[in-house]
Amino acid sequence: MSDVPPRGFPVGEYERRASAAQAMLAEQRLDALLVCTEPEVRYFTGFHTPFWQSPTRPWFVVLPREGRPIAVIPSIGGASMGETWIQDIRTWPAPRPGNDGVSLLATTLHEVAGNEGRVGVPMGPETHLRMPLADWEDLQEATIDVTYQDATAVVKSLRMRKSELEIAKTAHVCGIVSDAFEGIPGLLAVGMTEREAFAAFRIDLLQRGADDVPYLVGATGPGFDDVIKQPSDRVIGEGDLLMFDTGTVFDGYFSDFDRYYAFGRADDAACRAHETVWDATEAGLAVLRPGSTTSDLWAAMADVLDAGGSLGNDVGRLGHGLGMQVTEWPSNSSDDDTVITEGMVLTLEPGLTWAPGCMMLHEENVVVREDGPELLSRRAPRELPVIA
Amino acid sequence: MSDVPPRGFPVGEYERRASAAQAMLAEQRLDALLVCTEPEVRYFTGFHTPFWQSPTRPWFVVLPREGRPIAVIPSIGGASMGETWIQDIRTWPAPRPGNDGVSLLATTLHEVAGNEGRVGVPMGPETHLRMPLADWEDLQEATIDVTYQDATAVVKSLRMRKSELEIAKTAHVCGIVSDAFEGIPGLLAVGMTEREAFAAFRIDLLQRGADDVPYLVGATGPGFDDVIKQPSDRVIGEGDLLMFDTGTVFDGYFSDFDRYYAFGRADDAACRAHETVWDATEAGLAVLRPGSTTSDLWAAMADVLDAGGSLGNDVGRLGHGLGMQVTEWPSNSSDDDTVITEGMVLTLEPGLTWAPGCMMLHEENVVVREDGPELLSRRAPRELPVIA
Repeated sequence: MSDVPPRGFPVGEYERRASAAQAMLAEQRLDALLVCTEPEVRYFTGFHTPFWQSPTRPWFVVLPREGRPIAVIPSIGGASMGETWIQDIRTWPAPRPGNDGVSLLATTLHEVAGNEGRVGVPMGPETHLRMPLADWEDLQEATIDVTYQDATAVVKSLRMRKSELEIAKTAHVCGIVSDAFEGIPGLLAVGMTEREAFAAFRIDLLQRGADDVPYLVGATGPGFDDVIKQPSDRVIGEGDLLMFDTGTVFDGYFSDFDRYYAFGRADDAACRAHETVWDATEAGLAVLRPGSTTSDLWAAMADVLDAGGSLGNDVGRLGHGLGMQVTEWPSNSSDDDTVITEGMVLTLEPGLTWAPGCMMLHEENVVVREDGPELLSRRAPRELPVIA
Repeated sequence: MSDVPPRGFPVGEYERRASAAQAMLAEQRLDALLVCTEPEVRYFTGFHTPFWQSPTRPWFVVLPREGRPIAVIPSIGGASMGETWIQDIRTWPAPRPGNDGVSLLATTLHEVAGNEGRVGVPMGPETHLRMPLADWEDLQEATIDVTYQDATAVVKSLRMRKSELEIAKTAHVCGIVSDAFEGIPGLLAVGMTEREAFAAFRIDLLQRGADDVPYLVGATGPGFDDVIKQPSDRVIGEGDLLMFDTGTVFDGYFSDFDRYYAFGRADDAACRAHETVWDATEAGLAVLRPGSTTSDLWAAMADVLDAGGSLGNDVGRLGHGLGMQVTEWPSNSSDDDTVITEGMVLTLEPGLTWAPGCMMLHEENVVVREDGPELLSRRAPRELPVIA
């Protein structure tokens, strides 16, 4: 396992993020950027807490055309935000349902963007507005002179390309998860229930140094098509397949890859499917370099899946971006066409249906370097591994 | 520890939820209810997966005036949704950024609500619309004849009052967490870092049978005012206070309570603060019964905090609802005024600042019974416990 990377980021990282966003605001003639979801707030401020799971309070960050972001947040977060590089922290005693930050945010936007200002808000794919819809309407009324414009491209283009400090966190957690997957033959056995297997694997990941395992899905059986499943009391038997897919985190950065095992013996068709998805990943790796597109990646993998007799899959794409969230922009799909650049962290995730009701996904995590992909997950074996 | 409650819910539970919501739709002359967030979709369907952490795909459930809910979801969720009581499952191959379910949802709404129909959508406090804002605008355009109206009251009033089957899940996880808190003196010691302490406690909770620990915050030191903090490399020393606050889950239902410990010796002021927040909780418990209000609860606890010399707190309320989310409606605040009914699961969470920069929160979880509160968390000791 690699050395543990440092926690958090130096202020310079946040300065670069803010400056890069501000350059795009200027290009788009936007006076400010408004964000309100966990990854965007964390990206610009470093504010990092699981408190976002509480739906009660909205949180806002306003990035002006110059200078540091301004936090407009519930008072419960003031102390935590005070530990970040943010200097201008405006709080209100949330929850206050009649006016949960709306007037404070309106004042801030007027101050920053001026009257008749233009404010960017992410409104496009993979974004949402984390505030009550009625509050959004109140805000628009309180800032009737302000024009709100979609700024998805600003956060998307920035977040897609990772810094070396971000990559080191993902690489570290991918190492932990690779070790844990390789340890499965010693951890799981026929006779355990799915629920026991999930618990053992989750604990093992934490014992190996992961901060948390927010995403763990899996299934057992001769075959299965539910690839986002929670465990049942089903007992693992001889001849079963096992799939685990986990988004495990270190310092707020995710891994996202899966592995398959067979218990006792492996079905021929399952073995062939495993080799096909592995080969498809090889084909993806072969075309992955700066300048190729996500749709090139998709095509290279889809060709191998088709040749391998795929009956299709329900996932809608063959991989995606990875970072502060378990899935991020872009999508490896037929029409995504995002141009791949150095520093992108991606999953390659070819999937096929190898028999009715039997889907197999295979996933690896990579970072794009000048000369091609660098694997962050440890490459799976081509042959479906069998636990004796 | 209590026996492990059964997983999931029988169909009758979902039928009751749907019927109760449909009665409210009729009262409000709404033709359908549209929900798109994890807890609401799970509440009406039983669809349960951590896949919601992926922001890529929107998910929709439409509850008509009669009959079962209709799922309008990405194809990747079709197999999982097929395991629930939902029969009408409409899928599209998401992600499809140009039209990510919008036209399928528009067709469904027209079919269910008719032309010029009225559709309820949660728009009020503690809700948000989990779909891109641009898609929401597209949907409104594609259903220009449909009136969308705030339906927060429908989901809020239903979800606030828990069934016995829901309560059993919360009670079970509260038992696990109570055991784990009581085990802290044997688990943690001076010389550990905060990070080591967090990891040990998280693993201990899982080993005791929790499904997951999505929410864990805490701090150590002579005093602290950041109550939503992630761990640092600070080493626990003699005379330190430790606070852990966890939202741990069993079968998708949360506990939410905290505990304090002192290492070696306890500061007098900290001891007095602990007794004050404990006494405030007693005062809350004394007035908690069907017919009293959340503001009565707030007043009873606030009086004790004031008398105990509180310098205020930044939390904005003294407890809240608890269930599928770590915080839910209602709020124990001065002006919330929600009438308490049997079956509500609440936290009592009095907090005070006992010295500048030193906040203490105390939390217990209760269910409201005909004759008053029943504790779900095991009551903390009044005296601040000291680990020798």
